[in-house]
Amino acid sequence: MNHETLLYLAGATAISALVFAWLKSAWIARQDPGSQKLQDIGQAVREGAMAFLSREYRILSIFVLVVTALLFVFNKDSLKFVGLSFFVGASCSAVAGFFGMRVATMANSRTANSARHGLQAALRVAFSGGSVMGMSVVGLGLLGLSVLFMAYTRRWGMDLAALQGTVLPVLSGFSLGASSIALFARVGGGIYTKAADVGADLVGKVEAGIPEDDPRNPATVADNVGDNVGDVAGMGADLFESYVGAIVGAMVLGAAAASTDLVLLPLALAGIGILVSMLGTLFVRTREGGDPQFALNLGTMGAGLIMAILAWPVIHRLAPASYELGGEVYTATGVFWAVLAGLFSGILIGLLTEFHTALGRPPVKAIAEASTTGAATNIIAGLGVGMMSTTMPVLCLAGAIVAAHHFAGIYGVAIAALGMLATTGIQLAVDAYGPIADNAGGLAQMAGMDPEVRERTDKLDAVGNTTAAIGKGFAIGSAALTALALFAAFEQTAGISTIDVAKPNVLAGVLIGGMMPFLFSALAIGAVGRAAYKMIGEVRRQFREIPGILEGTGRPDYARCVDISTTAALKEMIIPGLLAIVTPIVVGYFGRLEMLGGLLCGVLVSGVLMALFMSNSGGAWDNAKKYIEGGAHGGKGSPAHKAAVVGDTVGDPFKDTAGPSINILIKLMCVVSLVIAPMLL
Amino acid sequence: MNHETLLYLAGATAISALVFAWLKSAWIARQDPGSQKLQDIGQAVREGAMAFLSREYRILSIFVLVVTALLFVFNKDSLKFVGLSFFVGASCSAVAGFFGMRVATMANSRTANSARHGLQAALRVAFSGGSVMGMSVVGLGLLGLSVLFMAYTRRWGMDLAALQGTVLPVLSGFSLGASSIALFARVGGGIYTKAADVGADLVGKVEAGIPEDDPRNPATVADNVGDNVGDVAGMGADLFESYVGAIVGAMVLGAAAASTDLVLLPLALAGIGILVSMLGTLFVRTREGGDPQFALNLGTMGAGLIMAILAWPVIHRLAPASYELGGEVYTATGVFWAVLAGLFSGILIGLLTEFHTALGRPPVKAIAEASTTGAATNIIAGLGVGMMSTTMPVLCLAGAIVAAHHFAGIYGVAIAALGMLATTGIQLAVDAYGPIADNAGGLAQMAGMDPEVRERTDKLDAVGNTTAAIGKGFAIGSAALTALALFAAFEQTAGISTIDVAKPNVLAGVLIGGMMPFLFSALAIGAVGRAAYKMIGEVRRQFREIPGILEGTGRPDYARCVDISTTAALKEMIIPGLLAIVTPIVVGYFGRLEMLGGLLCGVLVSGVLMALFMSNSGGAWDNAKKYIEGGAHGGKGSPAHKAAVVGDTVGDPFKDTAGPSINILIKLMCVVSLVIAPMLL
Repeated sequence: MNHETLLYLAGATAISALVFAWLKSAWIARQDPGSQKLQDIGQAVREGAMAFLSREYRILSIFVLVVTALLFVFNKDSLKFVGLSFFVGASCSAVAGFFGMRVATMANSRTANSARHGLQAALRVAFSGGSVMGMSVVGLGLLGLSVLFMAYTRRWGMDLAALQGTVLPVLSGFSLGASSIALFARVGGGIYTKAADVGADLVGKVEAGIPEDDPRNPATVADNVGDNVGDVAGMGADLFESYVGAIVGAMVLGAAAASTDLVLLPLALAGIGILVSMLGTLFVRTREGGDPQFALNLGTMGAGLIMAILAWPVIHRLAPASYELGGEVYTATGVFWAVLAGLFSGILIGLLTEFHTALGRPPVKAIAEASTTGAATNIIAGLGVGMMSTTMPVLCLAGAIVAAHHFAGIYGVAIAALGMLATTGIQLAVDAYGPIADNAGGLAQMAGMDPEVRERTDKLDAVGNTTAAIGKGFAIGSAALTALALFAAFEQTAGISTIDVAKPNVLAGVLIGGMMPFLFSALAIGAVGRAAYKMIGEVRRQFREIPGILEGTGRPDYARCVDISTTAALKEMIIPGLLAIVTPIVVGYFGRLEMLGGLLCGVLVSGVLMALFMSNSGGAWDNAKKYIEGGAHGGKGSPAHKAAVVGDTVGDPFKDTAGPSINILIKLMCVVSLVIAPMLL
Repeated sequence: MNHETLLYLAGATAISALVFAWLKSAWIARQDPGSQKLQDIGQAVREGAMAFLSREYRILSIFVLVVTALLFVFNKDSLKFVGLSFFVGASCSAVAGFFGMRVATMANSRTANSARHGLQAALRVAFSGGSVMGMSVVGLGLLGLSVLFMAYTRRWGMDLAALQGTVLPVLSGFSLGASSIALFARVGGGIYTKAADVGADLVGKVEAGIPEDDPRNPATVADNVGDNVGDVAGMGADLFESYVGAIVGAMVLGAAAASTDLVLLPLALAGIGILVSMLGTLFVRTREGGDPQFALNLGTMGAGLIMAILAWPVIHRLAPASYELGGEVYTATGVFWAVLAGLFSGILIGLLTEFHTALGRPPVKAIAEASTTGAATNIIAGLGVGMMSTTMPVLCLAGAIVAAHHFAGIYGVAIAALGMLATTGIQLAVDAYGPIADNAGGLAQMAGMDPEVRERTDKLDAVGNTTAAIGKGFAIGSAALTALALFAAFEQTAGISTIDVAKPNVLAGVLIGGMMPFLFSALAIGAVGRAAYKMIGEVRRQFREIPGILEGTGRPDYARCVDISTTAALKEMIIPGLLAIVTPIVVGYFGRLEMLGGLLCGVLVSGVLMALFMSNSGGAWDNAKKYIEGGAHGGKGSPAHKAAVVGDTVGDPFKDTAGPSINILIKLMCVVSLVIAPMLL
């Protein structure tokens, strides 16, 4: 196929995703927003979320402008365009986040209202809300990349020298822009959501003894805002980054294989993935009394299966029959196997995460059992489960890496990442559906709706917890492969043939890199603690000072709590964020390229492990508490339950702040290195 | 100097250390063992400890014989002697452990009795007991190596070809033997001590409300036995392994620098270190009302200083004026700087550990403060401190590695490890002093001695906690450098010039290696949980079934508790132990040498981090509890104290089982690889 045509097709698919997202959002807007009370509360959550986003973006716009300027000043000649790519990448990520969250905060109250009519109606609204986020991310990601690539190749040509020397190094800036936004969105959103959550729970549930999502609790709106800024916008930016990173990494390595076809193949696969994702959303429907989990699984697994089938003809049509890379010869069929290795290991890691964190599975039951002897044994059991849960996913990842490399060389590793991420559209739709359903339940509670409504939203929410766990595993796995692709792309760009850990300075780099996720997690966890502390103080103050607040006659000052979470999160995200960006620059400058390679290896390995450890132990603690609340070991209010609440609280910053932020840390440090590599030569 | 003479001198110094240990132990035996009751209880602890050791050694002897046979069968020609070295190494470690613990369990009751007369008398007995362990370890380590080296060079000659091809590969078996014993001693001892501790605390202190070390508690003897098998024998075997590993690693790398002088220099430095350590013990004395901490610091710091001064003439006399390694030329002065880099970073890491875990320092105070809002915030704060505490020590290590390599090439890194470990004799004496003082306090309590005695032993014990924290940091730092030396030696022996993490299969090895400490910790923590569970059941049963036990008229069945801890620890140590040994073999066989190199890199990096994280968070939780018990935040019995007890309990398996075991895991996997490398060629 003509290369130009292919680029137009990729762009067109990306636009179709955006049209799809726009139609879905218009459909959601047409749904009945429900009673005035529901609308009011929904509006408060929406305003809080958008206020956070706009304040966050205001800070980030300064950052983005400064970095754009720096990239322009410190790069030479054509490479000055890296700044442009960076700016466009950051903007696309921001717009996707803005659009996705706008719709998510519109879908939550409408989901609650639809739940009055039945489970299927509610699922449809919630999932549509999620799919707007999903399609915005993949649409803007692919559109931005295609348009920039088209413009750059028109300017510098599409021959290999131009691709390797200018086009792809410049294009990498797009990935850096995506990563920067992702880092701050994940860290800021993660701090926000947990500060509000912990504040609402500790003072409201524990001290004042009022139920979750009770409108008398001043932090309850902030808590619901947190679900949106953390789980919708944060996760969206995270996957935007992985998606873009995997495509860019594969393109760079395609050029290393000296084949323009292999440079374009990632864009084509991403385009197919978008079509497949849109198709997959059609499978997600259920009946009253049906199992929403089955519907969601059908959507993602179905999309995965179709992707696997379509990859075969696409690869054979576009990829060269054989190519040489690193002294070995590989075939188009090998590329197909690499896609499968990625797809398959992605699903497997998701299922393994589910096993370690789902209700009713042995690990969660063991933690619940350990809760009967107190908080200490609950914590020990949860930490043990988290550590143990790293084993199988790491073996999976190692297997996928070795297999993909065996079949298609280092290009295969990047293609495996893309195989995992091609169906990001529907994967993210399922992820973002969870917090929308969760929010719907909260709004229903606050608006005093029928208990039947809450039952239905609870059912959707419970499913959302499982999909969230799977989504987290998927995000970690894809982050690891994407980082590896970027790592390999970094080597290509830097022109270093080996990163020899037998050299002491490289090993020192590995040690420092390995330490980064620990430092970063400590900072993130500390930030949650400080922000939650402020929130606790404010909620206590309101309970004390606002007359009639606990009787339901006085109106709590929701906005003040929202403001506290916002200010704290934005302040606290800056240091860890800058650390992630500055460290590779400093190591690269003083330690040179090979030590920088060691740094990336260290952060990749220890980051994947810490992310798995923290996400999974957090998820398992959460569900152990839910398992006890379901009646095991004495149920709610029993000593075992009290112990399980301790574990759940510890797990919150683990699974929702530090763990997910590490995904970004890994990718960001790789992409920073990739972008600065030409300057260090 | 003549090489033969030098070897004789090294052997003679080693023997002098053993004579010193023997004289010290004879002196201790002559001290007054105190009242009959004190003797009886001391005897029970002693019998429990020796019973554990003899049952442990019975299991290990099977293991040692099997491995010896395997090494004989699978090696070819002269390399069959690896089996002999292995056997001798394992035996030396076992004998050192046996002798050290025999004396430690003799010194504890005599320390308690001496405390009747004053602080200085008690310090003298306790420290003498520790120095027997310290000198036995360095004496047997250096003696074993010198004798084997002498025998092997007589057989195969001392030219470079013989050294590189046969003598040093065969000698490496000694290090493997030491590592194997260390692994099981650390893991088994760690499980034993924490099962007994948790069992005694949870049922005795929390449920029955009787004080610590109360003779009515059936698990109290087992708890005191645990201090000996975990902190004395376990720590001894750990440092034996590091000491031997650093010497062997440096010798192998000396041969790589094509200099027989550099092969012998490590033995000479170790010999000097022994003399310096004996000298250092003379500084350890205090007056009534004096500060024992100052005395101990004077001993270790003084020894370090003298070592630094003596290293200069020794190196300049023995090392070649210049040598070539890896294409660069280095000088004898460079070797001296490498020794200093190791010494200095070892001390610095110890001090950093002290900062993060000591009473009254900001990190511990922050955890205590967080305890006021409950167990969850206590846990979060402790985990945060642990993660944060990895930053500076890792930068220290990285700095030492880069500096040592800069001054003396890869040989310098091994020499830096040796610089850290040359004064192991006094370092270990200080470490082993801690549990003896702790035990003395326990015995005094159980024997109903004067409160004044307990006050004095408490003072010694408090100092012991700090020295234990410093010792743990030191053990981790030295383990990292030793592992790196062994890692480099592995590359030399395997004849691979690069371990390129840019290759996907190598990176897969790094990932799997990085996962190992997590899996290993999960297994160790789970084992403590299971063993403690059995202990809790037994203590509850005795309280229920033995009439008059709580009134002090019925005699608890101490032996049964000792037996439960022993059986559980020995059973539980097997799987993690075999895992550590089998993994490098499997990866080496299926993934070949370079992937094995990746595995070692991964385990080294993630192991150092996890060991620092777990040891330091555990230590900080422990002291946060003690800080509150000292009166802060409401003191003993306050809600903050209850929360702090949760953290302390979580920290126990972290700091005393999983954390220290990882030191061995790192070294063992490196030394297994070093020994099997010739078979994989």
